[in-house]
Amino acid sequence: MRTLSHGIFRAFLATSLLLVSLATSAADDPLPSWNDGATKRAILDFVQRVTAPAGKDFVPAPERIAVFDNDGTLWSEQPMYVQVAFALDRIKALAPQHPEWREKQFFKAALEGDLKAVSQSGAKGLLELMMATHAGMTTEEFEQTVKDWLATARHPRFQRPYTECVYQPILELLAFLRASGFKTYIVSGGGVDFMRPWTEKVYGIPPEQVVGSSMKTKFELRDGKPALVRLPEIDFVNDKETKPVGIDRFIGRRPLLAFGNSDGDHQMLQWTAAGSGARFVGIVHHTDAERESAYDRASPIGRLDKALDEALAKGWTVVDMKSDWKTIFPPRDGR
Amino acid sequence: MRTLSHGIFRAFLATSLLLVSLATSAADDPLPSWNDGATKRAILDFVQRVTAPAGKDFVPAPERIAVFDNDGTLWSEQPMYVQVAFALDRIKALAPQHPEWREKQFFKAALEGDLKAVSQSGAKGLLELMMATHAGMTTEEFEQTVKDWLATARHPRFQRPYTECVYQPILELLAFLRASGFKTYIVSGGGVDFMRPWTEKVYGIPPEQVVGSSMKTKFELRDGKPALVRLPEIDFVNDKETKPVGIDRFIGRRPLLAFGNSDGDHQMLQWTAAGSGARFVGIVHHTDAERESAYDRASPIGRLDKALDEALAKGWTVVDMKSDWKTIFPPRDGR
Repeated sequence: MRTLSHGIFRAFLATSLLLVSLATSAADDPLPSWNDGATKRAILDFVQRVTAPAGKDFVPAPERIAVFDNDGTLWSEQPMYVQVAFALDRIKALAPQHPEWREKQFFKAALEGDLKAVSQSGAKGLLELMMATHAGMTTEEFEQTVKDWLATARHPRFQRPYTECVYQPILELLAFLRASGFKTYIVSGGGVDFMRPWTEKVYGIPPEQVVGSSMKTKFELRDGKPALVRLPEIDFVNDKETKPVGIDRFIGRRPLLAFGNSDGDHQMLQWTAAGSGARFVGIVHHTDAERESAYDRASPIGRLDKALDEALAKGWTVVDMKSDWKTIFPPRDGR
Repeated sequence: MRTLSHGIFRAFLATSLLLVSLATSAADDPLPSWNDGATKRAILDFVQRVTAPAGKDFVPAPERIAVFDNDGTLWSEQPMYVQVAFALDRIKALAPQHPEWREKQFFKAALEGDLKAVSQSGAKGLLELMMATHAGMTTEEFEQTVKDWLATARHPRFQRPYTECVYQPILELLAFLRASGFKTYIVSGGGVDFMRPWTEKVYGIPPEQVVGSSMKTKFELRDGKPALVRLPEIDFVNDKETKPVGIDRFIGRRPLLAFGNSDGDHQMLQWTAAGSGARFVGIVHHTDAERESAYDRASPIGRLDKALDEALAKGWTVVDMKSDWKTIFPPRDGR
């Protein structure tokens, strides 16, 4: 009986090892949309180092926090932030109920689709735009508005849903990190409530792992039923110096890996790089005008200047979109 | 060979089933410190209903969010909030460097251990106490201070570390919920940075699943090295009406289950109860003066009045500590 059990055990063990070996072979390239080269090797090496239990750089799974900027890192941010496109469409939809907007220069520009005037209105104009379109409803009503808009809106150049203008190589990286025990987070300057309704489906990142800018909300009983109402007041802006603040507040651990694409991510990258032990800092450099966009030091949206200098000086990993990525976007739905 | 494989497979399957059955038997009572009765049954029934895949109340695992207040729900809050005990000890430790404190009435009371005077100073006094003891250092320095204090501080009545004055029945409930696919969160009025250094070890709740009150922090480069410095300024108070706000901001999903013990949790419980489908709302009612404490409607700390009325009116689950719990605290370390 002992011998039989022993035999069964050995057979089972052999089968298991075979399965493991097959699995390893199938997963030999977890990043098929990345061209072979220094960038891809740097990513694979890093993940191998922090996950090898016997290695000196091993990090226990609960501490494997990976953070990604959203605009320009996970999806396209040109010719304008998707959330601004959303706000402009909301202005048009809400305009009939707000005749007073027609008198205001900024709203006039927005209604006429005068993008240049909109962007020239700067932070103050953008804030007015947000307050007018993102407040005054419950959190659930706003969530529905975002979902409805995304279902029909199309990227002006790529003519596909914005949620399909996401970077296939980064989707693969997110999945690879999760399979390697990482918890993946978004840390974005964009509105947390604009992202949460769709990030789980599109990126595999659940609502509770999205850190972003927010507006104040107020709890109240409406006809005895609890509601959270969105107020026209900024709560937190998660950008530049406040990205590490947001990471500390919402996650409470320093990331092991961080990816960004602009100076808005600079401090988050510095904060990550300064942690003890092995850390990975990556920048998506938009170098591909043909397939997506080419911009960096002089761009009004997603300017990449000081962070690029530090990346080059410190040997952070700079992804060259044109040469490092085989494909940019996922295959179209149904194709 | 096929037959042999088949035989091995059947033997393996039989062994697996045996192991599963043994595991089920051992886990037949996931809540051994809870006395049999309506409360325990209500909890077990609820978890069974939302996790049975074919049932009408089934909820997919990612949506199984459980939130717990901390003070008075996970650990003892009498005779004073543990964080206040920490702050008073910090005042004493820091006093030599702050001779000016001796002139201030509130600090004088704190230094003399005059608890009554301290509590009479109300919210303003408490705020002063927090600012003096919780700001001016980096986040990492503060974390170390909390850890060092908890390692030596003892509960004045129970004479054991505060982290051992936690409720064994709730520890079992947390573990049972996690084993049932729930993500367990703390949603506390206490400082998030006071809790995060130890909640993973004590409750199995990682830092990123702790929601609490916070102070502002500032990112800066100190000798070229990034640091987050704690400012003497309130960032967010997570209490009463703002607990649902905190849940929405940090988690972004409505809880499926919520446990509290005071009116400070009332709105969080209302917010949870008002969700669609099955929801569980629980209150820990401190009815055990002998083993822990007995207090509710008239208590200055942890007052339970309006929430208790609504619980009784709506049939929320009220835990009677004295009759529902076999034991209060975990066995002492090393015993």
